[in-house]
Amino acid sequence: MDADTPFPGEPADSREAIMRATFLALKQYGYAGLSIQRIADKADLSKSTFYHHYDDKQDLLTAFVDYILAEFTRAFSMEASDDPLENFRTYVDLILDPESISELEDPSPATAVLGTYVELRAQAVQDETFRAKFTEIDRAFEDQLAEIIADGIAAGVFRDVDPDRTATFLLTMIAGHTFRRTTRDDDPTDAVRAEFDNYVERTLRHTPE
Amino acid sequence: MDADTPFPGEPADSREAIMRATFLALKQYGYAGLSIQRIADKADLSKSTFYHHYDDKQDLLTAFVDYILAEFTRAFSMEASDDPLENFRTYVDLILDPESISELEDPSPATAVLGTYVELRAQAVQDETFRAKFTEIDRAFEDQLAEIIADGIAAGVFRDVDPDRTATFLLTMIAGHTFRRTTRDDDPTDAVRAEFDNYVERTLRHTPE
Repeated sequence: MDADTPFPGEPADSREAIMRATFLALKQYGYAGLSIQRIADKADLSKSTFYHHYDDKQDLLTAFVDYILAEFTRAFSMEASDDPLENFRTYVDLILDPESISELEDPSPATAVLGTYVELRAQAVQDETFRAKFTEIDRAFEDQLAEIIADGIAAGVFRDVDPDRTATFLLTMIAGHTFRRTTRDDDPTDAVRAEFDNYVERTLRHTPE
Repeated sequence: MDADTPFPGEPADSREAIMRATFLALKQYGYAGLSIQRIADKADLSKSTFYHHYDDKQDLLTAFVDYILAEFTRAFSMEASDDPLENFRTYVDLILDPESISELEDPSPATAVLGTYVELRAQAVQDETFRAKFTEIDRAFEDQLAEIIADGIAAGVFRDVDPDRTATFLLTMIAGHTFRRTTRDDDPTDAVRAEFDNYVERTLRHTPE
């Protein structure tokens, strides 16, 4: 199972095994084809073990969204350094182009995470529980990135921009790229990346006068 | 029915009546709850009339995506002027913040279109036919916006940027805003809008030296 997921090491417990199985089932069957049975099969666990941990599919999926955020935060912490500019780049790369820094030989699972994210998030158009969860997730990402930008301003590598507004704008751009690339035949990453770097250079980077 | 849709006037024929009914059914029931019966009910048409026009749900929904693009293009043509900067703003407003220029007293249907768009587009993560359709739609939007930018460069109101790359970046940003706002509790439009205008001012607008 490990080669097909972007999550390192063995699952620590049955909750984590269920999270990884949820990822694999979402990747293979999509949101529409997701069932508790299929997740239990992927995790080699019984349905009763599953229901010991989660009330229903929605309970599982909101936990899964939290798991992805925690995995992301963990991956970022492992890469984080004392250099705010380096941290900014790592943070952006992790979401904008996870293949570029994946340590896996086959980086396609990192892209598949983005597809499952888009499918789950689209449920929030109709579902209030998902909407509340993704609002919370967005704010967590915004706070993390705003803090990195504020560090960069303090260190003199970024201009004196509004960290919150800049973080919101950048994450909106990244969300748009994620939404588009996972739902297109081609991959516009290179064009978007070039213009993204251009924006950072012009708007964010501090150029001593 | 008219007050609940963003489409002006009476439907010209039963195909258009089905398109409007599809919008209303998507808005009310979401993608998961969409059925031919519900669409037929909304359109006051029989299921057999429906099947006279469309093979199945997927055939209908790809036609619906084309309909939305055609409606958008029609709305833009009605507003378009000889002023490239004005055209740029109208085009962006129509997608980024349709309420701001809606002529309807209640602009919420314009926002609901964005929600149905997000739900439909998310199907493309798993479905190749949808993926091909949204790739085509993206390119149509990119071509339209690149042409407006090229007009602005020729008229001297925009800098000598790469029109295609700039259009791709702007549409990625707009897609991100659409994806986020339709799946959150709050509406980050004002913050995104302010930073978007900032980007246009710094990167795109020509400032005589």
